[in-house]
Amino acid sequence: MIHHPAPEASPIGTIVVVGVGLIGGSCALALKRAGTVTTIVGVGRSQTNLDEALRLGVIDRGKTIDEAWTHEAHDADIVLIATPVAQYGPLLALLRKALGDATIVTDAGSTKQDVIGAARSTLGDAFTRFVPGHPIAGASLSGVGAARASLFDGRNVILTPLPETDARSHARVVKMWQDCGARVTTLDPAEHDRIFAAISHLPHLLAFSYVAELASRPQAAALFDRAGSGFRDFSRIAGGSPEMWRDITLANRPALQEELAAYRRALDRLSHLLDTGNGAALERVFAQARAARRKWEATDTDAATGDE
Amino acid sequence: MIHHPAPEASPIGTIVVVGVGLIGGSCALALKRAGTVTTIVGVGRSQTNLDEALRLGVIDRGKTIDEAWTHEAHDADIVLIATPVAQYGPLLALLRKALGDATIVTDAGSTKQDVIGAARSTLGDAFTRFVPGHPIAGASLSGVGAARASLFDGRNVILTPLPETDARSHARVVKMWQDCGARVTTLDPAEHDRIFAAISHLPHLLAFSYVAELASRPQAAALFDRAGSGFRDFSRIAGGSPEMWRDITLANRPALQEELAAYRRALDRLSHLLDTGNGAALERVFAQARAARRKWEATDTDAATGDE
Repeated sequence: MIHHPAPEASPIGTIVVVGVGLIGGSCALALKRAGTVTTIVGVGRSQTNLDEALRLGVIDRGKTIDEAWTHEAHDADIVLIATPVAQYGPLLALLRKALGDATIVTDAGSTKQDVIGAARSTLGDAFTRFVPGHPIAGASLSGVGAARASLFDGRNVILTPLPETDARSHARVVKMWQDCGARVTTLDPAEHDRIFAAISHLPHLLAFSYVAELASRPQAAALFDRAGSGFRDFSRIAGGSPEMWRDITLANRPALQEELAAYRRALDRLSHLLDTGNGAALERVFAQARAARRKWEATDTDAATGDE
Repeated sequence: MIHHPAPEASPIGTIVVVGVGLIGGSCALALKRAGTVTTIVGVGRSQTNLDEALRLGVIDRGKTIDEAWTHEAHDADIVLIATPVAQYGPLLALLRKALGDATIVTDAGSTKQDVIGAARSTLGDAFTRFVPGHPIAGASLSGVGAARASLFDGRNVILTPLPETDARSHARVVKMWQDCGARVTTLDPAEHDRIFAAISHLPHLLAFSYVAELASRPQAAALFDRAGSGFRDFSRIAGGSPEMWRDITLANRPALQEELAAYRRALDRLSHLLDTGNGAALERVFAQARAARRKWEATDTDAATGDE
């Protein structure tokens, strides 16, 4: 993990934000706040969302993905891809033909090895100017209406550059996120995907599965009626976007399958302890969890805010 | 589920609170606030805790469990048992010999069928004056230091009386909790245990298991370092008391085993969807969960507070 000092980099003339939702929209607002960007072009699937982004002052002009927009990428300094990761393939293919000689491409996807694979196979020579990134600043809300200039203040943005990644492009993306108020660090892409499978993707899968299983029962209403704060916290992440999480779980499948297998083995053991009434061993598992959770809580600096 | 109107009941002369922690201590403070109790006697395992309860004005006098305290139960109007449920057996046996002819016994345990079984086999004739209860007002904190008079304001207290439960005793306990600011409802004991296995005990087991599994890995520190708000919420309940949760999981074992089995089957299905890359079916599960979670959130009136 490397903390980067603020590098020298000239301001951004034009940035094309593909996917003007919470992340793309907040990046746009943060760059406007910093005064380090001249023009923000939004590209998205729906005209309605682009109209809202224009109305909110998030973007300067908008193009739907089906319009002619790739010339914008030709003239841009940076293209930020902030769509669900399953849309990257066709997007990168379009960009391949459109990119200017110096245009940098970066992204905000929650998984990195799959994104790098797609970019490598698509972008050709421009792959050296692709800087893979993951801003750790989700929230339970989504959409451009939830975007705000302060979303990345003090948050971590992880970049996973490769040996062949152009150093100037890397530095420029570091600077962009620092302008947004974020702390920028780097990780190896495989390590990134393993870590996030364990601490983010698996818990989402577990919470989705839990709530869906309860909801599928005939007596679901009687259960939800009595649910309290334990349920509330545990199930909060089951309110996430089904499409985004479908894409993340499939994109990070190998690492997530390993995590899920480890968890199912842990549940097998716990189930056995319950079946045999082994109170001492149950208490040891609970105590190990509590000690780790409390230690983490004591060092967690984001307790009052919403990173993901 | 029956909502009770406030019944007529005379004020409490003396209440003995066995287990002066968050729940027992908060009940004592709430009754003092209401002015409907004359004397509060605390009984607990540790002199240190009783001294703190005295210092904080939670109790009027304290006895350790090893001292002669059962004469207090003889003279009391109500005995509230608010210890971990595994301690009920010996406590009820002591109470059996000590109870006055009109002394009511009630409890605050998170499971009800096991408690009722223990009371039925122990209390003899006095079993008709046993009113099983479950105040739904836990918090991440525990101990008398966390007790507060407002803990039960607007909270649910569930009573699970039996056909043979004396109506006057029941009404008196309803009044006691209403004096504490709570809403009192009744449930069948078996239904209570099934519901709480699903919405509280299972999620605790899952969160404990998840955090313990991560904590047991050599690279645990690198994982916890990157954990964010999704992890925070999902794992919050893994900070609960290992002893209390050992007792709850064992006490409610049959219902919890059914819930755990249903959850493991749901994970088996999800794992299969992941293995086969079935994005459409994954998205359907996630969408079902999100819809149910959002619907619940919209009706949840306790969003800003800490029931459990």
